[in-house]
Amino acid sequence: MDDTTLVPVAGNGLLPLRALNRRQLLTGLGAGALALPSAALAAGGRPSWMQGAGVGMRGYGTPSPAETVGRVAIASQPGTTGSGASRTPLAALEGTITPSGLHFERHHSGVPTIDPGAHRLHIHGLVEKPLAFSLEALDRYPLVTQLRFLECSGNSAVNLAAPEAPDLDVATLHGLVSQSEWVGVPLSILLEEAGLKPGAAWVIAEGADAAAMSRSVPLAKALDDAIVALYQNGERLRPENGYPMRLFLPNYEGNMSVKWLRRLKVTDQPAMTKDETSKYTELMPDGRAAQFTFTMGVKSVITRPSKGYGLGAHGIYPITGLAWSGQGEIRRVEVSADGGRSWADAALEGPGGPGAMVRFRMPWHWQGQPATLVSRATDSTGARQPTREMLVQARGPQSLYHYNGQQRWQVSAAGDVRNSYV
Amino acid sequence: MDDTTLVPVAGNGLLPLRALNRRQLLTGLGAGALALPSAALAAGGRPSWMQGAGVGMRGYGTPSPAETVGRVAIASQPGTTGSGASRTPLAALEGTITPSGLHFERHHSGVPTIDPGAHRLHIHGLVEKPLAFSLEALDRYPLVTQLRFLECSGNSAVNLAAPEAPDLDVATLHGLVSQSEWVGVPLSILLEEAGLKPGAAWVIAEGADAAAMSRSVPLAKALDDAIVALYQNGERLRPENGYPMRLFLPNYEGNMSVKWLRRLKVTDQPAMTKDETSKYTELMPDGRAAQFTFTMGVKSVITRPSKGYGLGAHGIYPITGLAWSGQGEIRRVEVSADGGRSWADAALEGPGGPGAMVRFRMPWHWQGQPATLVSRATDSTGARQPTREMLVQARGPQSLYHYNGQQRWQVSAAGDVRNSYV
Repeated sequence: MDDTTLVPVAGNGLLPLRALNRRQLLTGLGAGALALPSAALAAGGRPSWMQGAGVGMRGYGTPSPAETVGRVAIASQPGTTGSGASRTPLAALEGTITPSGLHFERHHSGVPTIDPGAHRLHIHGLVEKPLAFSLEALDRYPLVTQLRFLECSGNSAVNLAAPEAPDLDVATLHGLVSQSEWVGVPLSILLEEAGLKPGAAWVIAEGADAAAMSRSVPLAKALDDAIVALYQNGERLRPENGYPMRLFLPNYEGNMSVKWLRRLKVTDQPAMTKDETSKYTELMPDGRAAQFTFTMGVKSVITRPSKGYGLGAHGIYPITGLAWSGQGEIRRVEVSADGGRSWADAALEGPGGPGAMVRFRMPWHWQGQPATLVSRATDSTGARQPTREMLVQARGPQSLYHYNGQQRWQVSAAGDVRNSYV
Repeated sequence: MDDTTLVPVAGNGLLPLRALNRRQLLTGLGAGALALPSAALAAGGRPSWMQGAGVGMRGYGTPSPAETVGRVAIASQPGTTGSGASRTPLAALEGTITPSGLHFERHHSGVPTIDPGAHRLHIHGLVEKPLAFSLEALDRYPLVTQLRFLECSGNSAVNLAAPEAPDLDVATLHGLVSQSEWVGVPLSILLEEAGLKPGAAWVIAEGADAAAMSRSVPLAKALDDAIVALYQNGERLRPENGYPMRLFLPNYEGNMSVKWLRRLKVTDQPAMTKDETSKYTELMPDGRAAQFTFTMGVKSVITRPSKGYGLGAHGIYPITGLAWSGQGEIRRVEVSADGGRSWADAALEGPGGPGAMVRFRMPWHWQGQPATLVSRATDSTGARQPTREMLVQARGPQSLYHYNGQQRWQVSAAGDVRNSYV
């Protein structure tokens, strides 16, 4: 056994990445041995589920009945049934893809039940030829495939607004972010077909929900990497994600990727819709609001250990989480076990690429000592995820949106984990 | 308009890839105009689903009720309910990820309903310490993330065995292949913990289904990139894919990635189980069988146009499909519209990487002429997907497994598409 794998690379027990490949350390330590002697097999006997044929095949599969993972913190506005949010259960998931059934939801008037054959996408305003597109027609257009995160700009806001760290789990705090493989038609192709008139500078996108959710999109973004998404993780969009079509603006705040996309009106200025006034703008300490702060910042969060996913016997534990940035590719994620006094680089995994989430991993030797676990990401622009203090200083505690501060998890001597600002 | 985008790059109307970004060609041609004048919007009126609040949020989402896509060709062995196969509806899907609910199934005695808390993975045989692992214990081990295709070695076999090209769709012909992001524990770590004894050369993997499906895995593979998979596309494995744990052997025939993994017995030779005798071996023309032909070959298939997804009005159509190889990364996919007389390179998309599927796309100008559409993939080893004739010549029509011949789709003057050998 290579004893140097036990020598910490940063304070409070962070181990070198090669410990990820040295599982025997766990047993070598005489603490936290996970595997049991295989006596049960020798004793014979097959489990009950091997005693007879299993169940048959299904047209469309669902999770095991033993699995109870669902979206969490489902909260509607008082007096409504479908306006509100639900969050992705980040701690229960692994890898980088979010199952479509667990993609976060944020609705302003519930999920419309749309007849895909009757739905049309209109392009009008400052165009030569106003056009209408059926789903069937869009399927004939060139499609592109993009693995991308989508994050609500209000994600994690409670960690900024609450004066004391709220005792919430990672899903409730940060679960308004998910990742899918999106496939759609480049919006540039559709706008080119309609023909832009002089003066065209913005595109107003409206959804076919009862709220007619609307946002103003700069024309430059619409002509760059925007798509009209038709597929999510291989299949047609889910109803909660805009079936049968949605705008998808990589790297921009999720609200702008208008679901159930019904029309795109080309204009010479933004519309200042109800969804971009007091909502989706950031109130600054001087009483003015920052508007059209589209791009999501560089961010990471440790998903395990986290509240509800604490530690048991002393031993080596995996620290893992997700990182993403609307500004570029994730280049580095550092982890600290001593509240940020010392840091070590985590291993990065997943397909990655621009606008894609990465999974990070770090081995940690926990011997019962109290600890504060933190992660911070750096992207390809060199931007590094700030601390909460830096954001409070820069924008005040009421800015609400675009909060990308570092998440701190306090681990007690008993192995319990809770949200912490210090 | 750049007229050179209409100049074919190969016979029978294949267009240069830059036509993928020149949508206006469709209308410029005066044939196949897809968008309609946007009169409906001007006429006013919001669709019924905008007239009132939509439905509320759900813990776990499902597809739109308007979507009827399911696994196809569900076929059980006579007299059984759960032994058989179902196939991924390839033509209805896009991108490179297969939704877990549509991942193909192949069961030998149905899907066992396993209690994840009671399930154990045993490692025994030629090891120093026989071990048993619970799901909870495996969650403490280092995990790795792999985006990988999984293909049944019997996929596409009917195209080899049937003397005349069967009139089947792409799902029924080739739907025993899917792609997921798999996350699991490197098997090397678990074997290292158990401690290999001298003479160890094979690992016999057994599933916890009533068939006790068993395969012999070379130790070198087990120590290379094999994992015990715990997660699929972000969440726990689906029951049909081995819940709560399966062996996953990248690039190897799917049958060896034993589901509901119950034990791994380390041995000095293969077990010659019932699942590797007449099944999962290839009968050669001389009456002998090729055994342990693990690696899946380089392959591609056009998913649209295909049977059931034919052509309507004349115009430019997207040709698209999937390519994969168990031998290396996909480097190139060529498409022909004249049955292989001339070829042009398709555009490749998706995260890709070793053992990952890629999506390919090619624009095609169809003016009503009969055509035979074919694709052929080349991987990073330089191997190129063979024709059916080459495989019949080399291995005879009864070899059944590992058929990776080129798929030919015959397009009639009416725009109908059917499977063809010529």
